[in-house]
Amino acid sequence: MTAALFRTLIAIALCCIACAAHRDARARTMQQVLDASSASDWRRPDPQHTLYMDLDGGRVVIELAPQFAPLHAANIETLVRAHYFDGLAILRVQDNFVTQWGDPDAATPGKARPFGQASRTLAPEFERVIDKSLAFTPLPDGDVYAREVGFSHGFPAARDRKAGKAWLTHCYGMVGAGRDNGADSGPGAELYVVIGQEPRQLDRNIALVGRVLQGMELLAALPRGTGAMGFYEQAAQRVPIRSIRIEADVPAAERTPLEVLRTDTPTFAALVESRRNRDDAWYQFKAGRISLCNVPLPVRKAAAPAP
Amino acid sequence: MTAALFRTLIAIALCCIACAAHRDARARTMQQVLDASSASDWRRPDPQHTLYMDLDGGRVVIELAPQFAPLHAANIETLVRAHYFDGLAILRVQDNFVTQWGDPDAATPGKARPFGQASRTLAPEFERVIDKSLAFTPLPDGDVYAREVGFSHGFPAARDRKAGKAWLTHCYGMVGAGRDNGADSGPGAELYVVIGQEPRQLDRNIALVGRVLQGMELLAALPRGTGAMGFYEQAAQRVPIRSIRIEADVPAAERTPLEVLRTDTPTFAALVESRRNRDDAWYQFKAGRISLCNVPLPVRKAAAPAP
Repeated sequence: MTAALFRTLIAIALCCIACAAHRDARARTMQQVLDASSASDWRRPDPQHTLYMDLDGGRVVIELAPQFAPLHAANIETLVRAHYFDGLAILRVQDNFVTQWGDPDAATPGKARPFGQASRTLAPEFERVIDKSLAFTPLPDGDVYAREVGFSHGFPAARDRKAGKAWLTHCYGMVGAGRDNGADSGPGAELYVVIGQEPRQLDRNIALVGRVLQGMELLAALPRGTGAMGFYEQAAQRVPIRSIRIEADVPAAERTPLEVLRTDTPTFAALVESRRNRDDAWYQFKAGRISLCNVPLPVRKAAAPAP
Repeated sequence: MTAALFRTLIAIALCCIACAAHRDARARTMQQVLDASSASDWRRPDPQHTLYMDLDGGRVVIELAPQFAPLHAANIETLVRAHYFDGLAILRVQDNFVTQWGDPDAATPGKARPFGQASRTLAPEFERVIDKSLAFTPLPDGDVYAREVGFSHGFPAARDRKAGKAWLTHCYGMVGAGRDNGADSGPGAELYVVIGQEPRQLDRNIALVGRVLQGMELLAALPRGTGAMGFYEQAAQRVPIRSIRIEADVPAAERTPLEVLRTDTPTFAALVESRRNRDDAWYQFKAGRISLCNVPLPVRKAAAPAP
C-alpha cells in the first residue's frame, strides 16, 4: 500500500466516523428513539403492586407507587383482596378535572361497605423524605409550581432538596386517594384519576398512589356528571366496576402484561430531547423546552408473559 | 358625652374598620370573588365572532379571536355562512390531545365539499405583533414555554416583548385551525379543540382561532378514535355536525346568550389570587403559584338576551 493510498483510506474512515456521529447527534423523533431502544430500557411493573380495574368497557391497568405512598398502596391492596371495590362504581366525572370511583353509600351508616382488615384513616403521604433509595431524573426546563421536577421510579415527581422532600405530581393519568378535610381521611377507598389539565394545586395536599398505564380512554371519555363537582345525579348514570384485582392474584391467562419505559436511562433522556425539539417537518417553531406533564411515559405490551 | 365614652366609641369604630379591612385582605374563594363581581366585570362576546356548533347532544359555543387570527376568523365565518360545516362531522378524538372536525372527504377530489368564496390557503397567524391595541394582563408565576404569559382580550396568551410578538396558547378548550406541513395550509375548514393536558409545543406552530365557552363536555367525553392519531376508523363512529352558525345570524329566541369574565379588571386579579392561594379548609398546602392553563375563565348565562 502506498502512503498516499493509506492516507486516503484514513481520511475516508474518519469521514465515515464523523458522518455516523453527526447522524447520531441529530434530533430524533420519539418513534425513532423507541425503535432504537433495547430490552433493558423497559421494565415490568411489579405484579404485586399493579391493579386491574375491569369495567364493562374494558380493563384499566394501574401501577401503584409504594415508593411514595406505601401505607396507601398496602391499604388499597388490602381492600382489593377483600373484594371491597367489586360491584362499586364510578361516581363522579368532572370535566377537565377528575374521574372518581368508590362506594356510593360510603356516607350511609348501615349501607356502607365494610372495610374489613383495611384502615379507615391513614397517615398522610402527601410527600416523602429524600433519601438514597429515591431515584430522580430531573428535567431541564423548570416548572411553575416546584423548584425541581422530573421522574422518580417511572412517575412524574417534584422535589425540594432544601426542604429534603419529594412528591408525586398531578399529571394526566395520575391516581390519588380522595379525602375529606382531615389529612388522614383518605385511606384509598375512594380513588380518582386526573383527566384534564394538570391540577397541580393538589400536589402535597393529597396522596397520589399511582398511575394509569392502560385504559385512560375508559375513564376520560365518560359522560360528565351534572351534579355538584361532577357527581352523577342518578344511580343509573354510574359506571359499574366489575372488579379490581391485583395482577399477581390473576391467573396468567387473564393478565395484561405491560412494559413501561424506564425513566433513568440514556434512552429516556433521548426521548425527552425528542419532545423538547420536535424533529418533524410539521414544526416551524421548536419549543426547545418541555413541561413535566407533557413528557410521555410510553407503555407497551410485554413481549412475553410475566415470569 | 364624656371624654372617656367618646374615646371608647372612637376605639370601637377604629376596631371595626380594622376588622373590615382584615376581612377584605383575607384570601377569598373564587365563588366569593364571583359573587362580589359587578356587571362591568363581565363582557358579552361579539355575536359577529361567536359560533354555535349544534350537535345531536347539544350546543357548543365558540368565541373567535380576531385580535390574533383575523384572516382565519373571517375565513371561518365565510365558510360558516356558506353552510360549509353543516352535515360534516367530528372525525378525530385523540385521548389527552384534541377533538377535530371537518370534511371526511376533504382529500377526495370530486367528493370534497366546495369552499365557495372562502380561501383554501391563508397566511400563517401563529403569532402577532405587539402594539397598543393588544391588551395583556400578565400572570406573576412564570411559564415553562414562554417569557411571559397572561390573558389578552379574554384568551390565554404569551408574549415576548424583546421579539415584539404575542400569541395565543394551547390551553384546554382552545380551538385551532388544523394544517398540513405548509404553514399556509390551515384555512379553518378543519378545526380542533384541546381536550387534555396543554400541548404547548403547538404554540407558534398553528393558528389558534378561539375558545370554547360552553359545551366542552360534548367534545371531551366522546369515544376516542382507534385509528392513527385518534381518527375514527368507521364512518359510523363519526359524530355528525347538524350545523355551525354565527350567533348574529341566529334568531334571538334560538340564541345562547353568555357572559365571560373580563381578564383586565381588579376582580379578575382577585380571582387569580384566589386560585394561587386557596382559602379553603381542605388545602393543607397553598401552592402560592398558578400556571397559565390552570386559571379558570368563568362563563355565565347572560342576565338578559343580546341587545
